Amino acid sequence: MGKTQITAEPGMPQIVITREFDAPRDLVFRAYSDPELLVQWLGPRDLTMTFDYHEPRDGGRWRYVSRDAEGNEYGFHGVFHGTPSPDGTVQTFEFEGAPGHVALETLTFEERDDRTLVRSVSSFQSVEDRDGMVAAGMERGVRESDERMEELLAKLRVG
Amino acid sequence: MGKTQITAEPGMPQIVITREFDAPRDLVFRAYSDPELLVQWLGPRDLTMTFDYHEPRDGGRWRYVSRDAEGNEYGFHGVFHGTPSPDGTVQTFEFEGAPGHVALETLTFEERDDRTLVRSVSSFQSVEDRDGMVAAGMERGVRESDERMEELLAKLRVG
Repeated sequence: MGKTQITAEPGMPQIVITREFDAPRDLVFRAYSDPELLVQWLGPRDLTMTFDYHEPRDGGRWRYVSRDAEGNEYGFHGVFHGTPSPDGTVQTFEFEGAPGHVALETLTFEERDDRTLVRSVSSFQSVEDRDGMVAAGMERGVRESDERMEELLAKLRVG
Repeated sequence: MGKTQITAEPGMPQIVITREFDAPRDLVFRAYSDPELLVQWLGPRDLTMTFDYHEPRDGGRWRYVSRDAEGNEYGFHGVFHGTPSPDGTVQTFEFEGAPGHVALETLTFEERDDRTLVRSVSSFQSVEDRDGMVAAGMERGVRESDERMEELLAKLRVG
C-alpha cells in the first residue's frame, strides 16, 4: 500500500502530496495520463467521472465532469503547459463551482526499485484558496483515490 | 507617477505587485489586454515585443517574442483561465528559455477616484522559481514598464 503524505504548511499557498505506488514508473504515469484509466481511480468511489476532452500537449485543454448518485454534476477543467511526461507534467486546475480560483499543479514521477514516487505540488493564488481546497475534503478524495489506484495497478500488472 | 510596490516575502512562492495609474479603470484594463497597446509599454525599452497570437477567452493562448538590438529573441507564452476582465484576469506565464517553469498570474483592476490600482499576484511552483524571477531583473522591467505605461496613458487620454 502506498504511503501518502499531504503537506499544507501554515501560511503557504501550496499543497504538496507525495504518494508511493508498487508499480513501475511508465505504468503509473499511464494511469495518471490516460483518461480511460484516470476515470477508474481519480476521486471518491461514489462519483462517476467522464472526460469531455483531454489533449495532452502544450496548450491542450482537459475537462471532466463528476456525477453523484443524485445526479449532481461537478465540472473541472484546465490546460497543460508543455507535453505531459513522467519528468514533469504541468497543468492548471479549476473547479467550475468556484470560477476564477485556479491552481497550478506540477507532477513528477520518480522510479525507486520498481516502485514509483509521485510528487504533486499545487500552487494556489492565495492561502485562503489553498485552505478552501483542504476544507472541501481533499484528503478523503486523495485517500480513496490511492486505494482505487492500487486496485487498478494490480489489475494492469496482471492483465 | 504611479506608486509601485513589489512584495516578495521570504519563503513564499509568490510575488505581489501593486501599481497605481492616473487613468480610469477601463483605459488601464485596455492597456493590459489589447496586444497593440501591450507592445507599447510592457518590458524594458531596449526590447521590441511582437505578439504571435493573443486569444483573450477561456483556454485561449497567448505568445510574444521580445527581441534586443543584437537580434536575440526571448519567447514567452501562456493561457487564459476564464475570459479576461477588469474584475479578474487569470493567466499562466512561461519563459521559453526555462521550459517547465510556469507561473500563475492573477490581475485585478480597482478604480479609486479616477485612478486605478492594479494588483498582480504571481504564484510560482517553488520559492526557487520565484527567486529566479527576481534575480532575472524583474524589478528593472517593472519600473521601466511603469514609465512607459504612464507615457502611453497620457497619449491615450489626449487622443
